[in-house]
Amino acid sequence: MNKAQDLKSKVSLVSGGAGFIGNTLVKKLIERDCIVFVADNFSLGKPDLLEKSANDPNMKIIEADLSKEEDVDMVFKTIVKDGYEIDEVWHLAANSDIPSGVLDPSIDLKDTFLTTHEILKACNRHSIQDFNFASSSAVYGDWGSMPLIETMGPLSPISNYGAMKLASEAQVSAAKESFLKNANIFRFPNVVGSPATHGVIIDFVRKLIDSPTELKVLGNGSQRKSYLHVTELVDAMLYVSDQEIKNTKANIINIGCDDDGVTVKAIAELVVGRCSPEANIIYGDEDRGWVGDVPRFRYNTSMLEKLGWSPSMSSLEAVHKAVDEIALQENF
Amino acid sequence: MNKAQDLKSKVSLVSGGAGFIGNTLVKKLIERDCIVFVADNFSLGKPDLLEKSANDPNMKIIEADLSKEEDVDMVFKTIVKDGYEIDEVWHLAANSDIPSGVLDPSIDLKDTFLTTHEILKACNRHSIQDFNFASSSAVYGDWGSMPLIETMGPLSPISNYGAMKLASEAQVSAAKESFLKNANIFRFPNVVGSPATHGVIIDFVRKLIDSPTELKVLGNGSQRKSYLHVTELVDAMLYVSDQEIKNTKANIINIGCDDDGVTVKAIAELVVGRCSPEANIIYGDEDRGWVGDVPRFRYNTSMLEKLGWSPSMSSLEAVHKAVDEIALQENF
Repeated sequence: MNKAQDLKSKVSLVSGGAGFIGNTLVKKLIERDCIVFVADNFSLGKPDLLEKSANDPNMKIIEADLSKEEDVDMVFKTIVKDGYEIDEVWHLAANSDIPSGVLDPSIDLKDTFLTTHEILKACNRHSIQDFNFASSSAVYGDWGSMPLIETMGPLSPISNYGAMKLASEAQVSAAKESFLKNANIFRFPNVVGSPATHGVIIDFVRKLIDSPTELKVLGNGSQRKSYLHVTELVDAMLYVSDQEIKNTKANIINIGCDDDGVTVKAIAELVVGRCSPEANIIYGDEDRGWVGDVPRFRYNTSMLEKLGWSPSMSSLEAVHKAVDEIALQENF
Repeated sequence: MNKAQDLKSKVSLVSGGAGFIGNTLVKKLIERDCIVFVADNFSLGKPDLLEKSANDPNMKIIEADLSKEEDVDMVFKTIVKDGYEIDEVWHLAANSDIPSGVLDPSIDLKDTFLTTHEILKACNRHSIQDFNFASSSAVYGDWGSMPLIETMGPLSPISNYGAMKLASEAQVSAAKESFLKNANIFRFPNVVGSPATHGVIIDFVRKLIDSPTELKVLGNGSQRKSYLHVTELVDAMLYVSDQEIKNTKANIINIGCDDDGVTVKAIAELVVGRCSPEANIIYGDEDRGWVGDVPRFRYNTSMLEKLGWSPSMSSLEAVHKAVDEIALQENF
């Protein structure tokens, strides 16, 4: 019995679906007539982000600590009890606060690594074939100005965040050999947009709310990174997932923009210009914001381009749009 | 207070020191006048392997489940209480039974991944600077006949064993950025020799003990892999560790032999010839022994050679020597 079969709809489980990126993905999946189950612990994701979708009969939110076997089991059994068979899993649940994980390695262990471990175990028990994983450019570590490409090695993550993303990729890879039919590992760049829950832009905006006359920046502002708007990220993931690429291994793909990126200084100036034009910007001395911060990264996205997808916005355009959105979100 | 300082000896903690490779490493470290603490759960390692060393005043064995925070804490505190400061950790504790981990992912999670996680946490608490990790060629996954080199990617392990080794590497890499001064990640090939606890040679020898007239081989015998004798492996690890390589990242190094390797068929014939010359060898149909078995691998060891170390035995010579040793060990 699978209700969705009668409806000819795909059934998607989105872990971390209440979070920043999950929120945009869930809306897009519903637009595509998917039946969407969201599992989230609401530690970083906020249920009100999904408010508009909450009355949608094609979406159901299940609160669960996905690092725990019994909770994951409950999620999968709830879906079965509702009369659905899961067609695909989008595993986005993770700690997204990099500095907190540097101080306490148990955070990334639990929220990034163990969620992957337990969800994959449940996928095996329930014979799920399609798995999409939200990985990160942080798996590469610090390569200076060398463009990051999927074929480079060795991978040397410099934060527990990056380490547990790489550790999760490894688990997906073994699961692909063992029971998954299709596995996509998307290596995200810095993603911006709304509804923001974390990240450099919202940090700056909130600092200016607290003290409108000055903005203290972590690091000397020279960090230069590639950014992608969340709507484009989700578009790219769905595009790749639609391709059904034939591969005995998991598809590991950089998602992003291959331009030279944007400096933290430029972002600080944009935010100040939009929210508090009189504020002084005060920079630190370090070339990076914190231990585990990669001060500079540039993406090689030729694999994604070869598949036929490119972003329509540059890093700077994406940041510009996100500054506007987040300023509005925070009532500027 | 550090008793070893008075003695001008290095203090080494060897996790998994009662196992196959640990046993050889511990003996070598004692020969080098190190004070050696062995921590092991004896699940695969056998205490009697260390019998000869057991009366050595420079060695102490501590039984512990190193996947548990409290046990790891106890180990480190025992050493401090004995009046020693740990100079270096050799983390060899891991599940080494690949097929068992394919059936039950919790085995590699606990014995390979969580042991690394807990030991690194303790290293941070105790300000330990030098860390050596026993990784594996299994992190690469299946690349057919392409020689495996440290700079290749993406890494796609095909077993939970390989996945948890890669996941452990990722943790070591983040720890190197955060608090370790020197970190070596040694990617082991297939290692042979005595005292064997597992692996293809002892499997064949024991099968012939059970049924002397036939030897059933998993797979069609065409699997071809590179082998290294355990004495050479330990020699290479100590050599690299002595170099004190300057590197902001962890040193990730293939250890092995770059020849064309040895087939399972050749190993079966060597074992039969040595132990039970009349036995029929019966092969399976598959090109691999089990899910997660990499059927063919060849190593590029140019990085190790550049550092100045090469093996003295070929893969075939190493296997030959190991067959003799293991046959003796099993009373043939």
